[in-house]
Amino acid sequence: VKQTVAVVGASGYTGAELLRLLLDHPAVEIAGLYAKASAGQPLARVFPQFAGRLDRTLEPVDIDAAARAGVVFSALPHGESAPVVEALLDRGAIVLDLSADFRLRDPAEHAAWYGHGASAAVRARAVYGQPETRRNELAGARLVAVPGCYPTAAILAAAPLVRAGLVEASLIVDAKSGVSGSGRAATPGTHFAEIGEGIRAYKVAGSHRHTAEMEQELGARVLFTPHLVPMSRGLLACVYAAPTDADRPASAYRDAVVAAYAGEPFVTVLPEGALPDTAHVRGSNRAHVNVFWDARTRRVLAMCAIDNLVKGASGQAVQCLNALLGFPETTGLGGVGLFP
Amino acid sequence: VKQTVAVVGASGYTGAELLRLLLDHPAVEIAGLYAKASAGQPLARVFPQFAGRLDRTLEPVDIDAAARAGVVFSALPHGESAPVVEALLDRGAIVLDLSADFRLRDPAEHAAWYGHGASAAVRARAVYGQPETRRNELAGARLVAVPGCYPTAAILAAAPLVRAGLVEASLIVDAKSGVSGSGRAATPGTHFAEIGEGIRAYKVAGSHRHTAEMEQELGARVLFTPHLVPMSRGLLACVYAAPTDADRPASAYRDAVVAAYAGEPFVTVLPEGALPDTAHVRGSNRAHVNVFWDARTRRVLAMCAIDNLVKGASGQAVQCLNALLGFPETTGLGGVGLFP
Amino acid sequence: VKQTVAVVGASGYTGAELLRLLLDHPAVEIAGLYAKASAGQPLARVFPQFAGRLDRTLEPVDIDAAARAGVVFSALPHGESAPVVEALLDRGAIVLDLSADFRLRDPAEHAAWYGHGASAAVRARAVYGQPETRRNELAGARLVAVPGCYPTAAILAAAPLVRAGLVEASLIVDAKSGVSGSGRAATPGTHFAEIGEGIRAYKVAGSHRHTAEMEQELGARVLFTPHLVPMSRGLLACVYAAPTDADRPASAYRDAVVAAYAGEPFVTVLPEGALPDTAHVRGSNRAHVNVFWDARTRRVLAMCAIDNLVKGASGQAVQCLNALLGFPETTGLGGVGLFP
Amino acid sequence: VKQTVAVVGASGYTGAELLRLLLDHPAVEIAGLYAKASAGQPLARVFPQFAGRLDRTLEPVDIDAAARAGVVFSALPHGESAPVVEALLDRGAIVLDLSADFRLRDPAEHAAWYGHGASAAVRARAVYGQPETRRNELAGARLVAVPGCYPTAAILAAAPLVRAGLVEASLIVDAKSGVSGSGRAATPGTHFAEIGEGIRAYKVAGSHRHTAEMEQELGARVLFTPHLVPMSRGLLACVYAAPTDADRPASAYRDAVVAAYAGEPFVTVLPEGALPDTAHVRGSNRAHVNVFWDARTRRVLAMCAIDNLVKGASGQAVQCLNALLGFPETTGLGGVGLFP
Repeated sequence: VKQTVAVVGASGYTGAELLRLLLDHPAVEIAGLYAKASAGQPLARVFPQFAGRLDRTLEPVDIDAAARAGVVFSALPHGESAPVVEALLDRGAIVLDLSADFRLRDPAEHAAWYGHGASAAVRARAVYGQPETRRNELAGARLVAVPGCYPTAAILAAAPLVRAGLVEASLIVDAKSGVSGSGRAATPGTHFAEIGEGIRAYKVAGSHRHTAEMEQELGARVLFTPHLVPMSRGLLACVYAAPTDADRPASAYRDAVVAAYAGEPFVTVLPEGALPDTAHVRGSNRAHVNVFWDARTRRVLAMCAIDNLVKGASGQAVQCLNALLGFPETTGLGGVGLFP
Repeated sequence: VKQTVAVVGASGYTGAELLRLLLDHPAVEIAGLYAKASAGQPLARVFPQFAGRLDRTLEPVDIDAAARAGVVFSALPHGESAPVVEALLDRGAIVLDLSADFRLRDPAEHAAWYGHGASAAVRARAVYGQPETRRNELAGARLVAVPGCYPTAAILAAAPLVRAGLVEASLIVDAKSGVSGSGRAATPGTHFAEIGEGIRAYKVAGSHRHTAEMEQELGARVLFTPHLVPMSRGLLACVYAAPTDADRPASAYRDAVVAAYAGEPFVTVLPEGALPDTAHVRGSNRAHVNVFWDARTRRVLAMCAIDNLVKGASGQAVQCLNALLGFPETTGLGGVGLFP
Repeated sequence: VKQTVAVVGASGYTGAELLRLLLDHPAVEIAGLYAKASAGQPLARVFPQFAGRLDRTLEPVDIDAAARAGVVFSALPHGESAPVVEALLDRGAIVLDLSADFRLRDPAEHAAWYGHGASAAVRARAVYGQPETRRNELAGARLVAVPGCYPTAAILAAAPLVRAGLVEASLIVDAKSGVSGSGRAATPGTHFAEIGEGIRAYKVAGSHRHTAEMEQELGARVLFTPHLVPMSRGLLACVYAAPTDADRPASAYRDAVVAAYAGEPFVTVLPEGALPDTAHVRGSNRAHVNVFWDARTRRVLAMCAIDNLVKGASGQAVQCLNALLGFPETTGLGGVGLFP
Repeated sequence: VKQTVAVVGASGYTGAELLRLLLDHPAVEIAGLYAKASAGQPLARVFPQFAGRLDRTLEPVDIDAAARAGVVFSALPHGESAPVVEALLDRGAIVLDLSADFRLRDPAEHAAWYGHGASAAVRARAVYGQPETRRNELAGARLVAVPGCYPTAAILAAAPLVRAGLVEASLIVDAKSGVSGSGRAATPGTHFAEIGEGIRAYKVAGSHRHTAEMEQELGARVLFTPHLVPMSRGLLACVYAAPTDADRPASAYRDAVVAAYAGEPFVTVLPEGALPDTAHVRGSNRAHVNVFWDARTRRVLAMCAIDNLVKGASGQAVQCLNALLGFPETTGLGGVGLFP
């Protein structure tokens, strides 16, 4: 028998991406679809790509009904998600939350960056849902805080280097994201003519909330510069780091990353010298990683390319579900990137 | 046991798209991958999206070996495909050919548009592989000529109207395609800076070869205007037609199309008034169709949006394979469009 | 001495484009800049491209002050513009209005398409500001209704053919526009991730208001299909028409257009067979036109590419100003298209 | 009387951009246009944007004729330019060279990065043509080596900080460029479908030749990471630097840059906190600069956005011409950025 799952917040991009992936998952059955603003509308009107494949109607959020599915994905916005998630947990559901409400462990950090009041006690029980770095906590978890898109890429690029003590714990993360990372709301920052044929950074110098997530998971200080790129999907993180030992062989850094990801089903360390490209992971849960040594300045450059909506959100959530329920992690996530 | 299939011409876009789809097909196993220019290279170097998922090497074209798979997809260029296909047929293989070499039945038409000499006898045995219009010929076929991208969209939009005699047999097809339709070769016509932030028609007024395919399948004269749009994938066809009876009720046209596609697994006639958008079928084998009546000029406008590499090429080829082998047509083709 | 001009509605795309062009106009001096929502803000905060070049503040709309400039461009939205324009006229100003409020002559047509009540008497005095077709009315005009972007392209493509009686007065206009044509408001229809990597038609079958303008100026029935293309600027119109005499030589159509535009400073009829491309007129006031004969269906295809914000709006407005004041029409408008 | 100028290499993007700018230059008259591959073709066939505005034919390179113009711009590729430039200098012409052949002063550096043999003696006489940093050398220069696009942006961002000793002389330059920076040749790296909807770095870790230019002009070691962004034009450089005194007030860095560029006609230091965006300088010779202090990691982030073909190439060349001939530097370069 299949595991039933509900999706709360199915009218946003990460919600729709969850549905796309779950429809291909052989061990899962989609129970209810819940949304706020679009409740009452056919899913295929809100997202026409589902016409003929999932002809269902978005229902108003019903916590009791959702909880009965047993497993619930919450793709509600930050702040809106916490009370729903807590109510779902109270009713015994397993919850995978794609918002930021349960990602930060330190109450002071959470308050500083988000302010709103997800219960610290509940947050303390949440597992940060990046299987590559926290796999052993996922089995049997009841609440997974699925990471943000930027932290996912930055952590995949840098964690093996930082954890092995190969680089100093002060990193520069210069990252570039497609527009879907901003969500479906129409704003000046998502208007095609405003952002379509240019590039710019935004929320620089410690003003983007994902900074805190990276610092928590990497145990390092992070200078984070996000950019908005004229493409719908994709996220590329470049992490610059100083070596802890400047005389270490240049190959040590890439070797460490290769070793760290041996056996990882979704992380490909590219051949030496090959550059990650977001176009090659579009639509897939795969991360393309590589590491370079800059002899000129004696610094390390680690890179990771992902699809912000898949490995950076909904695909990672499904990967966590697999880990949590004991399915092979690749179940339902084998899709090859849509290139070109 | 699974059906083994070989892919000849795996280093182009339609070849790669075949591999992406076949990897998700539960009843098929990929045997050899063959290519010309890229032979000897790992597939993941030519197409990095396959890294970790299909770690194979492209082999030089080996007709005997390919034929032993039993089923072969040929994604070679026009002209290069015919001799390979004929040799494969001689060795008993079933062939699905994505080139134009076997699409035109009339030898004079073929000679006029393509010149090169695919055997007329072999061409006469080929089935034009659009399941919605030629399903009954596909079961048991040995050679399928998979349609071009533009004809697929134009035929899906117009065939129900023309065949029912609702419109005159003289059509205007104004169609817009993404750049991948031009293939992977780097040319001025695929250079980002040349075509990236503008739109233009090309090969107008009866100079594009797909004109002949549309005329053959629709039994109508066609004025065809293809355009190149700054996007990687997607094809939208607008077909303008004059009614055979100007006093027929306006609803008759859309009704006919709704009826024609009832039960079709991959054609969605959108709700009345809704406009097909290529963004909603990206990466999927689905066609979004709709029909409008322009009371002002008393003309019919029929539209169809597809992904040129899927329903317009490789997905349709797999759909034909399913029809040919007796699998449900949707086998391996259930993927929802990647939107956004 | 220079002619002072005021711009009302300077916080939208056509307003900003006016400022860009007027800054390069040697016989004009920009007096006041007026806006509604952005009043009180520095222009360079609303449109950073002006920093260092026009460091002025947007003022709340002040009709008396604007009128004192002598010439006023109104780039306010439809409906909002009419009362402002009428008040400016009352104060003796010459007005070039970029809204639709004064474009339609027939009161019934205006009411049917726009409803709101620009005075019919004032509307009757307005000159439709397309110099190529109405130049003789522009000299000395007091009110110019600057045409919409779609009508500009469609009229430039088709007017010589229709007026010479070479084609039937029933046209199909299949046109493709960049996103800036939708204005600066953030909506689902301008969201990058919704529309950035696909193409779709909108407001089809007689539901787009520009239909009426085309019909008025061309004296023909028009089936109009506008499309939204993933690019910021550019507009390509394809006009399909039936010949009035099917036996006329194929060359007659292009010859007529070449003759019609001989001496026109902003209309280039491309060499025979060359295709207009919006990328080649980006940022310029130039129109690229060509005409084709489809022997297969015995129909004419006329095409025109413009920049929707320049020849389709603000550039044409400046061209009208030149015509009106007796300057050479090219004054301040010589800029070459920004390609690539 | 106007200064006549010739353009050698007029069939590439920087050549065409020179023509666009020179046509608007009131003190300059375009003499001959010379090209290699496209010689004999009308300019308007090679670049249709010039139709009706510069109806001239590209001539085969004729050094004597070009030299007679008095001033020659060479936009030939690296390696091809040097012998032409040297021959032009021999004939007494003033030359502004847009290639890299005369940019590097140190013969060893030049040999290491470019190999080919521009005369060291001639190279020693060349002025590096960035007016903001080398203005005093430009007056009366006979040979200007116009900087590369990446160095221009990196130097404008970082030079005031490095020269004032505010930051350590080891910099990270993470820069993002539009596709036109790769030139007009059709390659896999310029193919729309390969690079159109993704982002990737290229030539990282000291393998891009512009590294040497940045190091020479900044007097600092540079870790340079260029990226290819899906847009035609635009270049954004982010420069990361460590302060020489970690306790200096955070405002010191931006203050220094504001002071350095006071009075500069083409450099705008944006308001505090505002982010440079390449969309706002598209088509203009302006640079948008800003500086940020990251308190978290105690590092400085300096940014600069330019149009790679204007301030990063042809516009800067014209600016140098103005400086060299004693015209106001803004002559012919006042155009406002084409936004949107």
